[in-house]
Amino acid sequence: MYHMSNKSKKLSTDAYKGVRDFFPKEMAIEKKIFDIWRTTVETYGYEEYSASVLEPSELYRAKSGEEIVNEQTYTFTDRGDREVTLRPEMTPTLARMVAAKKRELVFPLRWYSIPNLFRYEQPQRGRVREHWQLNVDIFGVESTNAEIETINIACDIMRAYGLKDTDFEVRLNNRKIMDYITRDIYSLNEQSAHKLSKLIDKKDKIKTEAFKIGANEILGNNAQSFLTLLNSKNFEDFVSNLPQTKEETSSGSYDLHTGLAEIRAVIDGLEKLGITNIRFDQTLMRGFDYYTGIVFEIFDLNPINHRAVFGGGRYDDLLSLFGNEKVSAVGFGTGDVIARDLMETYNSLPVSNPSADIAIIVIGEQNTPYALELAKSLRSKKIRVVIDLSKKKISDQIKNADKKSIPRIICIGDEEVKTGKLRVKNMTTGEEIISSEDTISL
Amino acid sequence: MYHMSNKSKKLSTDAYKGVRDFFPKEMAIEKKIFDIWRTTVETYGYEEYSASVLEPSELYRAKSGEEIVNEQTYTFTDRGDREVTLRPEMTPTLARMVAAKKRELVFPLRWYSIPNLFRYEQPQRGRVREHWQLNVDIFGVESTNAEIETINIACDIMRAYGLKDTDFEVRLNNRKIMDYITRDIYSLNEQSAHKLSKLIDKKDKIKTEAFKIGANEILGNNAQSFLTLLNSKNFEDFVSNLPQTKEETSSGSYDLHTGLAEIRAVIDGLEKLGITNIRFDQTLMRGFDYYTGIVFEIFDLNPINHRAVFGGGRYDDLLSLFGNEKVSAVGFGTGDVIARDLMETYNSLPVSNPSADIAIIVIGEQNTPYALELAKSLRSKKIRVVIDLSKKKISDQIKNADKKSIPRIICIGDEEVKTGKLRVKNMTTGEEIISSEDTISL
Repeated sequence: MYHMSNKSKKLSTDAYKGVRDFFPKEMAIEKKIFDIWRTTVETYGYEEYSASVLEPSELYRAKSGEEIVNEQTYTFTDRGDREVTLRPEMTPTLARMVAAKKRELVFPLRWYSIPNLFRYEQPQRGRVREHWQLNVDIFGVESTNAEIETINIACDIMRAYGLKDTDFEVRLNNRKIMDYITRDIYSLNEQSAHKLSKLIDKKDKIKTEAFKIGANEILGNNAQSFLTLLNSKNFEDFVSNLPQTKEETSSGSYDLHTGLAEIRAVIDGLEKLGITNIRFDQTLMRGFDYYTGIVFEIFDLNPINHRAVFGGGRYDDLLSLFGNEKVSAVGFGTGDVIARDLMETYNSLPVSNPSADIAIIVIGEQNTPYALELAKSLRSKKIRVVIDLSKKKISDQIKNADKKSIPRIICIGDEEVKTGKLRVKNMTTGEEIISSEDTISL
Repeated sequence: MYHMSNKSKKLSTDAYKGVRDFFPKEMAIEKKIFDIWRTTVETYGYEEYSASVLEPSELYRAKSGEEIVNEQTYTFTDRGDREVTLRPEMTPTLARMVAAKKRELVFPLRWYSIPNLFRYEQPQRGRVREHWQLNVDIFGVESTNAEIETINIACDIMRAYGLKDTDFEVRLNNRKIMDYITRDIYSLNEQSAHKLSKLIDKKDKIKTEAFKIGANEILGNNAQSFLTLLNSKNFEDFVSNLPQTKEETSSGSYDLHTGLAEIRAVIDGLEKLGITNIRFDQTLMRGFDYYTGIVFEIFDLNPINHRAVFGGGRYDDLLSLFGNEKVSAVGFGTGDVIARDLMETYNSLPVSNPSADIAIIVIGEQNTPYALELAKSLRSKKIRVVIDLSKKKISDQIKNADKKSIPRIICIGDEEVKTGKLRVKNMTTGEEIISSEDTISL
């Protein structure tokens, strides 16, 4: 190709804006996070799936709308005139895959994935344009046992990050209750209901007065009763603050009773499994509108983070986008950035694992073949062996092995090659053990 | 968001053209391949790094040229007017990262990565638009010990795919020898030399006559001597066919002698490690022009595949693109598609690992809490437990556990809850073992 014309121009070593490079040190943390995720969900019988980061844009337009896709995602047109999007979330891909093989798959289906997701937004602290997310989903369980299982998994992961149950909280709401309030109590249309949910979502971020003005705009005379409801101290208080509709036999009333019963069932079920850091939160909305029942968050109470770590819920309708009949589904997502923040806060970042168990230092080029053979024999015993192979001074080679925290070294010189007596030096204690090639072990 | 207008339109369940969905069955194979890669390279002391698939386009323009970037990659302009490319290869990213932290890093550096790479091309058998590739690189070793080590790793991976040494071949060439031939023997300029290397690359794919015409166009009168050289039967034959230049003390002559000596050193070094399926191949060019010394391929000799599985070589100049001084580097890449093909050919695809060790079947909804607690206790012992939780008939739940190849089931009904006596049924033998919660083990 020989296009050397640009060679004089110095290239930047920066990554693309808003994405991260993972040098081995950072990668070790990332791998630890993925390992916690995989190990935990696999004890619950979940299977890993994956897909390309490229998806047809129409997959997102159907649920998220034109505006979101155009303004908040990486979307471009390929040379075949297809609109392509770098996936901003995994659930549409998951729904697509389940819909594609629905007849062959054995339900209940328990699937997880660790995709990277892209969002086009201004990079800021804790907000990157690309992040990795654990997605855990169960299809085909209609009862709240699905919510109980997935919340249970989320709590196990929080504990694996180093948190005690008192450090975090499970927060629950139910889309059915919210629907009842907006549709049956306040007779809002879909658009106003959506506006109200967005307002509630912002509640903690805007001033009380601004919130009241917003509520008045949407609810008029009903704003005050709504505020009372929203400020309910707990589940019982909320239930007693619920204004009654006239038609107790309406479908709305059915939704309300189911909604409340589901909340109670999840709280009960989790308490039986020892999870008591759980509360109903009528202000919990979640960003996506595909939820149809219980929604939940796992919230880190530590003031340093004080944010949702997991978010999820029930979304029974998603497969209908593909012309499939409804399938019950409950799922959650959680990201790598917050995972790392938590492990930092709770001092559970992994102690870096050295890249090798033994470093072989060759004294005299003529002894390299012997060293290579020794390494080969040790590797066949699953011992990780590195040979420096640079032409640096021996003392520098030993210093470098130490910098890389490699716990043992073996120097190979003429004497060792002749006698086969090898000194394995422990770099922490300085102790040396004399071994032969066959007897070296960790 | 509530954009339900599209809801009636049925979405396609197809993945984007040329990329793959990984259902759990395919994902299990992918994970097995990655596991072979990681395990093997880590025994040689290599550390994993990673980066985003998004890179500034200029990273590729410098070496590959405008045309390649525009026509063979996914390149688009973001809203900040930056040109972004979905990485088509990992080496430029690697060079960028090493250049960025060159002062802090401890050399020799042994790094690997398993990136997904994108190429914009017409999908065809074995050629997809996205694939995963193992990249293994060593920086800071000037001697051919770096080539010996990396080829050794590649051979270990071939064996882990299930191949015997007689099933494959290591093929070697040296860019220095090729440079000597084009520059010193035939006095070609860079462009003609590049054309000649592309022609040689196509040798096996085009007719002999077409090849001769191409050679004539580039070399004129020298075409015949070149063809003799190219058709040399082996290394010795090739060396004796080499036309002599007048200036035996020129830098060209130095390159030739170094080039030949390096080939000999790599063949010798590998033979000492028991790798004898190795040969010099004067027609081996490799696609990328950043190689500066030894280039190599591992070639599957089985007629079903009969193609290069690994490709790599020495590229000492790449860091200079970033204004850094030269650093010795040797690396190779190998892909997931060919890995899977090989494991199919050599019958070493993984036997699917069931998603759980035990399936719990609940008889009577009232017994679910007991089952959940039992599962919790087993999971704390690292046993992978799945509870069906669907409202299917008991016989169907058992059938489904069997379809998923889960090796053991426990049925939980009123009797089991009352007595705590649990029957663990082996699904293969039909044998039942009576246990208590505490004594169940695998």
